[in-house]
Amino acid sequence: MLSNFRKITPLLNRVMIKRFEVPNKSAGGILLPETKEKDMQIGEVIAIGPGSYDEQGNFQEIAVKVGQKVLLPPYGGTSVDFKDEKYSIYKDSEILAVLE
Amino acid sequence: MLSNFRKITPLLNRVMIKRFEVPNKSAGGILLPETKEKDMQIGEVIAIGPGSYDEQGNFQEIAVKVGQKVLLPPYGGTSVDFKDEKYSIYKDSEILAVLE
Amino acid sequence: MLSNFRKITPLLNRVMIKRFEVPNKSAGGILLPETKEKDMQIGEVIAIGPGSYDEQGNFQEIAVKVGQKVLLPPYGGTSVDFKDEKYSIYKDSEILAVLE
Amino acid sequence: MLSNFRKITPLLNRVMIKRFEVPNKSAGGILLPETKEKDMQIGEVIAIGPGSYDEQGNFQEIAVKVGQKVLLPPYGGTSVDFKDEKYSIYKDSEILAVLE
Amino acid sequence: MLSNFRKITPLLNRVMIKRFEVPNKSAGGILLPETKEKDMQIGEVIAIGPGSYDEQGNFQEIAVKVGQKVLLPPYGGTSVDFKDEKYSIYKDSEILAVLE
Amino acid sequence: MLSNFRKITPLLNRVMIKRFEVPNKSAGGILLPETKEKDMQIGEVIAIGPGSYDEQGNFQEIAVKVGQKVLLPPYGGTSVDFKDEKYSIYKDSEILAVLE
Amino acid sequence: MLSNFRKITPLLNRVMIKRFEVPNKSAGGILLPETKEKDMQIGEVIAIGPGSYDEQGNFQEIAVKVGQKVLLPPYGGTSVDFKDEKYSIYKDSEILAVLE
Repeated sequence: MLSNFRKITPLLNRVMIKRFEVPNKSAGGILLPETKEKDMQIGEVIAIGPGSYDEQGNFQEIAVKVGQKVLLPPYGGTSVDFKDEKYSIYKDSEILAVLE
Repeated sequence: MLSNFRKITPLLNRVMIKRFEVPNKSAGGILLPETKEKDMQIGEVIAIGPGSYDEQGNFQEIAVKVGQKVLLPPYGGTSVDFKDEKYSIYKDSEILAVLE
Repeated sequence: MLSNFRKITPLLNRVMIKRFEVPNKSAGGILLPETKEKDMQIGEVIAIGPGSYDEQGNFQEIAVKVGQKVLLPPYGGTSVDFKDEKYSIYKDSEILAVLE
Repeated sequence: MLSNFRKITPLLNRVMIKRFEVPNKSAGGILLPETKEKDMQIGEVIAIGPGSYDEQGNFQEIAVKVGQKVLLPPYGGTSVDFKDEKYSIYKDSEILAVLE
Repeated sequence: MLSNFRKITPLLNRVMIKRFEVPNKSAGGILLPETKEKDMQIGEVIAIGPGSYDEQGNFQEIAVKVGQKVLLPPYGGTSVDFKDEKYSIYKDSEILAVLE
Repeated sequence: MLSNFRKITPLLNRVMIKRFEVPNKSAGGILLPETKEKDMQIGEVIAIGPGSYDEQGNFQEIAVKVGQKVLLPPYGGTSVDFKDEKYSIYKDSEILAVLE
Repeated sequence: MLSNFRKITPLLNRVMIKRFEVPNKSAGGILLPETKEKDMQIGEVIAIGPGSYDEQGNFQEIAVKVGQKVLLPPYGGTSVDFKDEKYSIYKDSEILAVLE
């Protein structure tokens, strides 16, 4: 089982993202209004691959760093459930933006 | 939530555009006639990515600058609602023209 | 609104064309016969982009000049209504021929 | 109108072909049998573009010359009616063969 | 008409093949059993184009010679009826094998 | 029959993976709850190809090593049943991550 | 007819494979159980093409040798019946693995 493993290291130009669940209740338990923001896929970069060669044989660094918060596209990525947490694996070129 | 963040920085060759809502009423409250212009997607460049390497490993600058007003294609782009404003993230090569 | 702007400058390898409306009445008001020519899309180059880099990083000039009359393909292009005139934005490689 | 123009010059790697109408009656007025040849698309090269750069930035000459008779593919090309004659605009790489 | 011409010379990397009709009767007039071989498309190379440049601008010789017998793919190619014979025009890279 | 062979060596940039069957019962025979992990495709690299040349003629090493445990994509790969074991053959670029 | 020919030599990067029919009866005539192995496509390399140039003009050797036993993909390839034997013609990059 996946949980038997300690560590997941993405391959080539892939990155592993821990998805933030957007709470539909405020800290005080009040139901948050349905906002478009709720669908926004946000997450944190947990692990990155070694990078990969483009079609011309030029090495391409990964565009994000571990620990960065990122804005994810509405589609794409492979969902991975690991030790009861929700992760996704994307190609780094699919990630939209860095959040600060 | 997305609003917890201060800043969104697009990745690679992407740009973030603040879309102008085309008013259907004039300043005096008169309903503007349905004009084709109304569908025109216009916006302002809010943030740009660092640029990216093309398939040959040549670095490609971003084709627009922050602050420029631009004409957007009728399709494409990812909508982002951030602090109650409507934004879109496009690849710079998708943007049609600069408006002056 | 788009009309608030003075000038539209296409980006990269795009060109802006002012489409000629093919009259279906002669100067004297006689209904012109339905001819195939009527569907021919003709226009004048109003503005051109700066050109763009091909996949190999080689800079490609724009294939047409401002002022040239051109024959447009039956499909493609983005329609732009600007100050009550009909324009289209094409990639220069989509334009079929120059008319003299 | 297209007929107001003197000359049509194809752009990039395009060529303009004047299509030969395959007669279905012999000179003497006898109805020619339905032959497969009838569907053969034949024409004469009327005008050629300046040629174009391939993906690697290498300039590619046009593969046919003005005046050559050519065999056209059953599909593709854009039909152009000009001064009551039937023309087609093809990319030179679409043309099948030269006829002598 | 196509038959008015003497010679057909394929363009670029195309080749012209004279298709062998697979007889369904033996020399002695006996109906040959329906064999899979019957669908095999076999032909002889009648004419070859000058060759063409690949995407990198490298010149690619034609892979077959005039006079060679070849095995054709079940699909593709453009049929050409010329002087009551059945020909096909293929790109040389579509041809499966040479028969000896 | 495949079982008559001793060894299967993947070609080019392919790798052969022995898929782990995710048990739906614990060691003590208790039915494990339906968890998302169950669909996770995990396996061990059994054999790797020699690697292959990318479109630019640059040799690309295989991204995984024999013996590594890997996370497989939910789709793709060719299933191979060999000596009563379940294997899959993937292109190395399809494999998501290495597990430790 | 194909059988009139002595030899079939694949072109470019193609290889000709003689497919092994997977017996559904054992030597002693006992009906073998329906096993997944039965669908496994196995064959022997009978003839190989000269190899071909990739998009960059780099010559690519054929990945298999005559006489090698190979594992074929479940799809693709062109079937060729020649002198009552079943062959298939594949591009060498489609072949999954070598069997020893």
